[in-house]
Amino acid sequence: MRVSVIGGSSIDERAESTAEAVGREIADRGHTVVCGGLGGTMEAVCRGARTADDPGETIGILPGDRRDAANPFVTTPIATGIGHARNALVAMNGDAIVALDGGPGTLSEIGMGAVYDRPIAGIGTHEVAWVEAVETPVAAVDLLEKAVGNSRKA
Amino acid sequence: MRVSVIGGSSIDERAESTAEAVGREIADRGHTVVCGGLGGTMEAVCRGARTADDPGETIGILPGDRRDAANPFVTTPIATGIGHARNALVAMNGDAIVALDGGPGTLSEIGMGAVYDRPIAGIGTHEVAWVEAVETPVAAVDLLEKAVGNSRKA
Amino acid sequence: MRVSVIGGSSIDERAESTAEAVGREIADRGHTVVCGGLGGTMEAVCRGARTADDPGETIGILPGDRRDAANPFVTTPIATGIGHARNALVAMNGDAIVALDGGPGTLSEIGMGAVYDRPIAGIGTHEVAWVEAVETPVAAVDLLEKAVGNSRKA
Amino acid sequence: MRVSVIGGSSIDERAESTAEAVGREIADRGHTVVCGGLGGTMEAVCRGARTADDPGETIGILPGDRRDAANPFVTTPIATGIGHARNALVAMNGDAIVALDGGPGTLSEIGMGAVYDRPIAGIGTHEVAWVEAVETPVAAVDLLEKAVGNSRKA
Repeated sequence: MRVSVIGGSSIDERAESTAEAVGREIADRGHTVVCGGLGGTMEAVCRGARTADDPGETIGILPGDRRDAANPFVTTPIATGIGHARNALVAMNGDAIVALDGGPGTLSEIGMGAVYDRPIAGIGTHEVAWVEAVETPVAAVDLLEKAVGNSRKA
Repeated sequence: MRVSVIGGSSIDERAESTAEAVGREIADRGHTVVCGGLGGTMEAVCRGARTADDPGETIGILPGDRRDAANPFVTTPIATGIGHARNALVAMNGDAIVALDGGPGTLSEIGMGAVYDRPIAGIGTHEVAWVEAVETPVAAVDLLEKAVGNSRKA
Repeated sequence: MRVSVIGGSSIDERAESTAEAVGREIADRGHTVVCGGLGGTMEAVCRGARTADDPGETIGILPGDRRDAANPFVTTPIATGIGHARNALVAMNGDAIVALDGGPGTLSEIGMGAVYDRPIAGIGTHEVAWVEAVETPVAAVDLLEKAVGNSRKA
Repeated sequence: MRVSVIGGSSIDERAESTAEAVGREIADRGHTVVCGGLGGTMEAVCRGARTADDPGETIGILPGDRRDAANPFVTTPIATGIGHARNALVAMNGDAIVALDGGPGTLSEIGMGAVYDRPIAGIGTHEVAWVEAVETPVAAVDLLEKAVGNSRKA
């Protein structure tokens, strides 16, 4: 399946380490990462996926119109040129979502994920309806695999 | 100024009455309503603005590509054809935001409003950072006028 | 009705004079101008509409996320933040289209106008199917009123 | 490099055969196909790329919000939910463009390709500036590789 990972572009070391672990976990289970393609959470999760034992694909859906703005761990950059409105596409292109961190962009993506009825696991993020809080990357992916009913590679 | 009013398309009688009062208050103070152009909260707020003593303008930014989908109280329908991604435009086109109700689309618009650094007054909506909870339509518009530093017609 | 006017942002004096006459003609007949909201053709057509004997409304659908980027003759600026993709919205929001000038953005808007099955009158623009070439602003608006079957204010 | 292939969704047998040959040629040279992800030209070009001796990647940028709308030969479907406005993304995500066929959507994409300054090779398509007409799929890819200065896999 595809897992969209959402979180801020400016994060502290601990959040970065969590994001990287989330990316590694997603890749290790044979899933694909979808994210906003830029820095911070987005780069950390892609780095995690690419440095997993069995590196996974990483789709970066960028706000700008140049795909070379993607972080170096994105395998498939998609330029959109539609700015923050691309947050809807980040949410829409995952079968499930992991929300990290607590910025406003992340909140908009949680809302969009709920609009598209995606299961959302959250680690240290907004406490709102639709987000199921978990403690670890393993628990996050466990929850989402169960919700999607799909632990196979897709 | 322009005030974006965000809220669900399916609402109960009480929420409808609040939305209508918000629209009337915005118009009475010479401001313009921006909304998503469809039914529920969007229609109620536009009806309020149009039935005020001094009817105000109402801009409806629609998800579909046909402007005749707008509710009958929209004075300037804008078709977008970009679906839920138009939520970013609803937030962006107001100088300030009133959030009503508690659906996922509303949450995405609160996030987008925060991305664009708009002051947000909330009545019975999500309790998240960036939303200042108030009790009444009058208090909502008071708060936003003060935040924008603009009580003149704009 | 609404008439979308499309054309380049960098134009010579003659094209500017034509665009202004088109805007004046649209307003004089009680119609509303829709355009991309910026300079060149867009500003000239809005200026024409606003300096007509009976000034008309002008909707500017902007590529950026700030409505203060609109030219001073736009009465209803709409920020989109979706960049060139907003060309689809410019075409979609008119009942009919006048194409001026010959840049690539204009070509994309002619294509979008045809996708949305809008009648298109062209003055000095691309010679492609779907564009009916005319000589004057009066002939352009005549043709579009006839095609839309609507010479009343709308 | 990435080559965006644009053309109608309803095509005759000959156009289908050309589109398939274009897809095969792109894949055989180690490039990636980008397209709108649906049927007609889009499906034929993807089928060509996937049935090449060395099958290539195919990115389908869809108008709707469901990625299962992609044709079966798309390896990376991207849902957008932004309707025809996604044509801008199809043009933007290629380093170069092959235009086939002559519908209005194709014309809008040629315009967008020119906006983004992409080299465009055309086979049996609109005769407008920015499109260099060629006779065969081989000639099309030859022209684009030369224009982009890149015959290596990218």
